Amino acid sequence: MSVKSILVLTEVEIDTFFPEGRFEALKSLLGDCRVVDCRDMGAEEWRALLAEVNPKIIVAGWKMSRLPEDALREVCPHLKYVCYLAGSVRKVVPRSLIEDGLLVSNWGASISRTIAECALFLAISCCRNLAHWNRQMHDCGGWKDDTTTTRSLFEKRVGIHGYGSIARALIALLKPFNCELVVYSDGVPAEVFKADGVSSADSVEDLFRDRDVVFELEALIPERVKVVNESLLRSMTRGGIFVNVARGELVDEEALLRVVNDGHIKAGVDVYSVEPLPKDHPFRGCYDIVMLPHIAGPTTDRRRDAGDHAHDNVARFLNGEAVSSIVTTDIYDRST
Amino acid sequence: MSVKSILVLTEVEIDTFFPEGRFEALKSLLGDCRVVDCRDMGAEEWRALLAEVNPKIIVAGWKMSRLPEDALREVCPHLKYVCYLAGSVRKVVPRSLIEDGLLVSNWGASISRTIAECALFLAISCCRNLAHWNRQMHDCGGWKDDTTTTRSLFEKRVGIHGYGSIARALIALLKPFNCELVVYSDGVPAEVFKADGVSSADSVEDLFRDRDVVFELEALIPERVKVVNESLLRSMTRGGIFVNVARGELVDEEALLRVVNDGHIKAGVDVYSVEPLPKDHPFRGCYDIVMLPHIAGPTTDRRRDAGDHAHDNVARFLNGEAVSSIVTTDIYDRST
Repeated sequence: MSVKSILVLTEVEIDTFFPEGRFEALKSLLGDCRVVDCRDMGAEEWRALLAEVNPKIIVAGWKMSRLPEDALREVCPHLKYVCYLAGSVRKVVPRSLIEDGLLVSNWGASISRTIAECALFLAISCCRNLAHWNRQMHDCGGWKDDTTTTRSLFEKRVGIHGYGSIARALIALLKPFNCELVVYSDGVPAEVFKADGVSSADSVEDLFRDRDVVFELEALIPERVKVVNESLLRSMTRGGIFVNVARGELVDEEALLRVVNDGHIKAGVDVYSVEPLPKDHPFRGCYDIVMLPHIAGPTTDRRRDAGDHAHDNVARFLNGEAVSSIVTTDIYDRST
Repeated sequence: MSVKSILVLTEVEIDTFFPEGRFEALKSLLGDCRVVDCRDMGAEEWRALLAEVNPKIIVAGWKMSRLPEDALREVCPHLKYVCYLAGSVRKVVPRSLIEDGLLVSNWGASISRTIAECALFLAISCCRNLAHWNRQMHDCGGWKDDTTTTRSLFEKRVGIHGYGSIARALIALLKPFNCELVVYSDGVPAEVFKADGVSSADSVEDLFRDRDVVFELEALIPERVKVVNESLLRSMTRGGIFVNVARGELVDEEALLRVVNDGHIKAGVDVYSVEPLPKDHPFRGCYDIVMLPHIAGPTTDRRRDAGDHAHDNVARFLNGEAVSSIVTTDIYDRST
């Protein structure tokens, strides 16, 4: 008897996570599977489908409707494994299902490097005054003059706030820049950094103080709302650069704007506490902030890495091997 | 008897090439030296100064007036060494002086990494549609939607056109991106690439064909004007990225604009065949081209690397050791 499964994917998700024969390979691996796009389904219809198929495995993308709280007890009692293609499962998997023993995995570290790339990119953007020059060159007929100054990332004093897979990927990208690198993540013991050969700061204050560049990469949990406050930002080197590709809520955005407008630092920002960013948000028009619309990662062309990671995990599950990137209740609670 | 020397430097050059005690160190190394800013000098005054001091060494920045053709024969016959802080000496040193045995050095590879950094940055800018998003976020109240796509540099098929110190520095920066890298430089034999462990293309056509990203880094010589033509650009992968941080004249700019406007490639451009770029240049307002105003390098904060390189060379010269980054007549002819 073959394993029953549901692939909850939109057409775009199929094309980007499983391009170039990957989708056929996944379906052939799964055997008896149903492909559904549940965006137009009501809650009852979704529930009825789960009950009808009673899958052992669900492979799901961003647009899966939330699983019912009673999925394992009532709706689809055979369900053992949800292989989620993306990151945080909070919106789609109730915590109680994990408590009840449902195995859930996510994209793990498979797409972290694209976010690290964006962080590096935003830092160099600030070095090069990109927001200013882009406007000058395209819209204002501008050109440099004798007062133009530029900076490089080489040899800078760099701090990384957070120490998950994106921070590790960023450290690899920063290596050729010969920076003086220090990492700090609340709750990560110094021994972990030591074992990885990474220098660590003693506190978040120590991390920001006199730093030329700080990358914000902490996961957002309630205690970390606005952890990046005015005094931390002001403690950076004059001319410093603050980059946020994590979550907007980690930063006191009004304070960031004040410190930038004072000319103390520049900022590169991909994420905001309110998204989509309001049209009249005060960051807009401040050309000392390089802004992106939450597109750090995964880039469209590298979603396939998450697809390959999922395929690998499904194969492991079917072979009775250990699945990687498991979302435990601990990880669930610490995720954004 | 101490060696006489002239330091031809502006205040800004002193502050940026020799910050933090470096200028005092250089003067103390040189002993009997005169510091001049010759920007306000006429040709006769400059000639008279050279004759009066009759230096053995000149350390010079961008703003030095051109040395007279008869410098060695008539004006300052003791002159043995011009330590030029920047790159091409064509504007400031007549070729005949090098033929007559004058030792001339430049910044060599000391600042190449900052230009490589800018090349990397422009490539990622194109991946992220920076010119578009910068405008959208700052000036148009924009945000991403379901049609937004992004790309990454990871795993791309990358070509580098040119193989000097900037190309080498770029290869180091690209290493963590796991690209499939191929280099081509007209006249550089395949054995050189092989010895460096770098894959090489057979021709410039082979370099561009089916490439996702091409970095233009060739030196400009008359035979290379518009070497990057429409057919090369069209032979790149659809969605490809062309980056130019070398010289604008290497590229058929009208062809580049056509190929970009057709949606075939995007471009990141720091250099133009006419600089300053005319206010009505057709690149302006084309948001598929990320544009900078010839600021790839050296960045202001890393001019000190060229200063350190010059100090090291002066010390070598005074000790009778071999100076590095010597501008031979061959290099003179091949320089931009």
